[in-house]
Amino acid sequence: MAAFTFICSECGARYRETEVRYVCPACARQQQPGGVTRGVLRVELEHVPERWPAARWSDPQTLASFLPVASSASFPPLPVGCTPLLPVARLRQHLAMPHLWVKDDTRNPSGSTKDRASLLVIAKAIEYGFDTVATASTGNAASALACLAAAAGVRAVVFVPADAPHAKLVQSASYGARLVPVTGSYDDAFELSLAACDRFGWYNRNTAFNPFTIEGKKTVALEIAHTLAPDPPDAVIVPTGDGVIVSGVAKGFADLVRAGLLTRAPRLVAVQPEGSSAIAHALREGAAAPTPLVSAHSVADSLVVGAPRNGLMAVAQVRASGGAGVLVSDEAILDALGVLARTTGVFAEPAAAAALAGLLVALEEGVVAHNERVVVLVTGSGLKDVGAAARAVRLPDPIPPRLEAVAEALDDAPESRR
Amino acid sequence: MAAFTFICSECGARYRETEVRYVCPACARQQQPGGVTRGVLRVELEHVPERWPAARWSDPQTLASFLPVASSASFPPLPVGCTPLLPVARLRQHLAMPHLWVKDDTRNPSGSTKDRASLLVIAKAIEYGFDTVATASTGNAASALACLAAAAGVRAVVFVPADAPHAKLVQSASYGARLVPVTGSYDDAFELSLAACDRFGWYNRNTAFNPFTIEGKKTVALEIAHTLAPDPPDAVIVPTGDGVIVSGVAKGFADLVRAGLLTRAPRLVAVQPEGSSAIAHALREGAAAPTPLVSAHSVADSLVVGAPRNGLMAVAQVRASGGAGVLVSDEAILDALGVLARTTGVFAEPAAAAALAGLLVALEEGVVAHNERVVVLVTGSGLKDVGAAARAVRLPDPIPPRLEAVAEALDDAPESRR
Repeated sequence: MAAFTFICSECGARYRETEVRYVCPACARQQQPGGVTRGVLRVELEHVPERWPAARWSDPQTLASFLPVASSASFPPLPVGCTPLLPVARLRQHLAMPHLWVKDDTRNPSGSTKDRASLLVIAKAIEYGFDTVATASTGNAASALACLAAAAGVRAVVFVPADAPHAKLVQSASYGARLVPVTGSYDDAFELSLAACDRFGWYNRNTAFNPFTIEGKKTVALEIAHTLAPDPPDAVIVPTGDGVIVSGVAKGFADLVRAGLLTRAPRLVAVQPEGSSAIAHALREGAAAPTPLVSAHSVADSLVVGAPRNGLMAVAQVRASGGAGVLVSDEAILDALGVLARTTGVFAEPAAAAALAGLLVALEEGVVAHNERVVVLVTGSGLKDVGAAARAVRLPDPIPPRLEAVAEALDDAPESRR
Repeated sequence: MAAFTFICSECGARYRETEVRYVCPACARQQQPGGVTRGVLRVELEHVPERWPAARWSDPQTLASFLPVASSASFPPLPVGCTPLLPVARLRQHLAMPHLWVKDDTRNPSGSTKDRASLLVIAKAIEYGFDTVATASTGNAASALACLAAAAGVRAVVFVPADAPHAKLVQSASYGARLVPVTGSYDDAFELSLAACDRFGWYNRNTAFNPFTIEGKKTVALEIAHTLAPDPPDAVIVPTGDGVIVSGVAKGFADLVRAGLLTRAPRLVAVQPEGSSAIAHALREGAAAPTPLVSAHSVADSLVVGAPRNGLMAVAQVRASGGAGVLVSDEAILDALGVLARTTGVFAEPAAAAALAGLLVALEEGVVAHNERVVVLVTGSGLKDVGAAARAVRLPDPIPPRLEAVAEALDDAPESRR
């Protein structure tokens, strides 16, 4: 089926699938510990289908024709993607944007866009003959790996910093993943996962290290473009942490332009929290490489990264798309979480709500215009982090079970919420 | 479009849509406070389509032809249903059941089967001209109402007992629902919601009171039957609290038999926790009516009801299907949660995992056989109650970031988990 070559996104070196597994060996020599990943590989398919698929995007045959797998039988037997692209009438009115859509990726099996990456990584693990896939992660990537691995019957091992939030690990553990809490930082967990894969013969899914994480995420762009065909969106708003999702989105549109299915790729807007903004800063300052932050923080925990591992590729691709980086405050993220839920019925985690917060900034800054065709990518479910959502709402005081008390309580409630 | 009549499930009286709103006025005179609902109405469509739809089940035109609405434009603009029916190869092997499926209703917009009911209730509220819909609930019904109401731009008011778990309310509040915590029991909240709807001119969505909650949930049966056509399942395993979901499932199959699209309806197995088992007990003891429990309790909070409000209809329908009631322990529910997640990648809340636990009991008791065609209905997402899932897994102790420690930790881990 889809034959392909790896191309180094830094030096342009080309490798056959059998020659290299994770990153460009030449560029990897410049790797700094805990820094952005050097030599991240892109997948170049020999042939991209020149027609839209007749079946749905979650169909294994469809996926196999657009993704670098040897067989459609390699995919785990759990539908991923094919999520709704919502024409959000009420949010359109609220924002005076008549051509706005929300891509609701909360509907994926483990509740986030990362399932798209894990679908492909597990398929490749099966094709390469691995029985175990490991990753370093504290959140959605771990859950996504554990979920798809469970469906496929592959073992998942997840390395986490020991101080990772307890609740975040329960979902992964429920899927049967082996959790390995590590006394140390995320970088320690990352390095240990690499060493363990080497030593025990496991496959590594680390984000922005395994090239199939980027390639898998491109399916969200394929679906968006197909739903809106023949008119592509003018801009896609993408919440950005380490830069893998935005690069996956760019790759999807690039494949479609190459196949002649799109005449142009949309501008990509990378949204980052003010406290975790290395990629957005690089984009705004004209720098090629993001400067790692000593300490990153945000209510949107899925976007918190000091050194965005896929920063080089993300900065280059957003810039090449004609897009931009925008910054959002934690307060704006929580506000956006409420606006999105109240106007569309989509309950997002803070990292995903950041996309809507970023759209507001992009409108103010003139990065997108009100009459453009714009898609907001909502990457993860609000049920992933109910604690954060609780900060955005006020739960009223109890009333006695009498009608008069109901009337009073409703009078007190702020009407402006709707 | 679909014209219909209400029929009282107790006395058989027939009413036109304009004559009655919630329950049979004659039978309602026998209503006991806090008891099972008397005079629950069934919807009888004048005409059920005699062909499977060409479009998907989430398509408004398709829904309108099978549901009692005046127009397909009445539905909220958020896809509900059309969830995967998974052929769960690994679980089939684990249970030696070659013809087993899991209906994954965790993929609904607010994460549970209750979205199917709210979709129809909001559509009817719009057709009747209500701008506000109220319900009494502590959990998934409230979230589902709030979610679909937000998408449609209808106001939602949710009456909850003041001691309802905080986290359960955050999702509803995030969707913009007005929460009204009531100092008192669920029954107090229920009665207050009825009084408030009367007084303020709101529409009431209370489960097993508004007849469209049952009718809306039937779509899950339509989808199951369509996916497996032409061979219907032999049995469907349904987690059961107040008896609305199991009645909705029965109604869906009944409609299809009436239309000639099915030759027979499957047996329904109602699964209840040992601590909240009024319907299952009535089924096992040959009683027509469930005896309300003084105090109900279970880890599966969505199934905890003292007096199952739709108990009369549920008992009659499960019995008529040739099915049975089965009881499961909290321990078995948590075990099943893990087995389901580890073998299928579907992360269920305890109430939903109870269905799988119930299948094991049904196999033991000879209620279903290993070689039958069986569907397990998974009604809600595990992300709804991560705290309960945490009770089913063990998070290991941290290790230092050294390979030797990884090897030791893996040796210690119980291999039996997969």
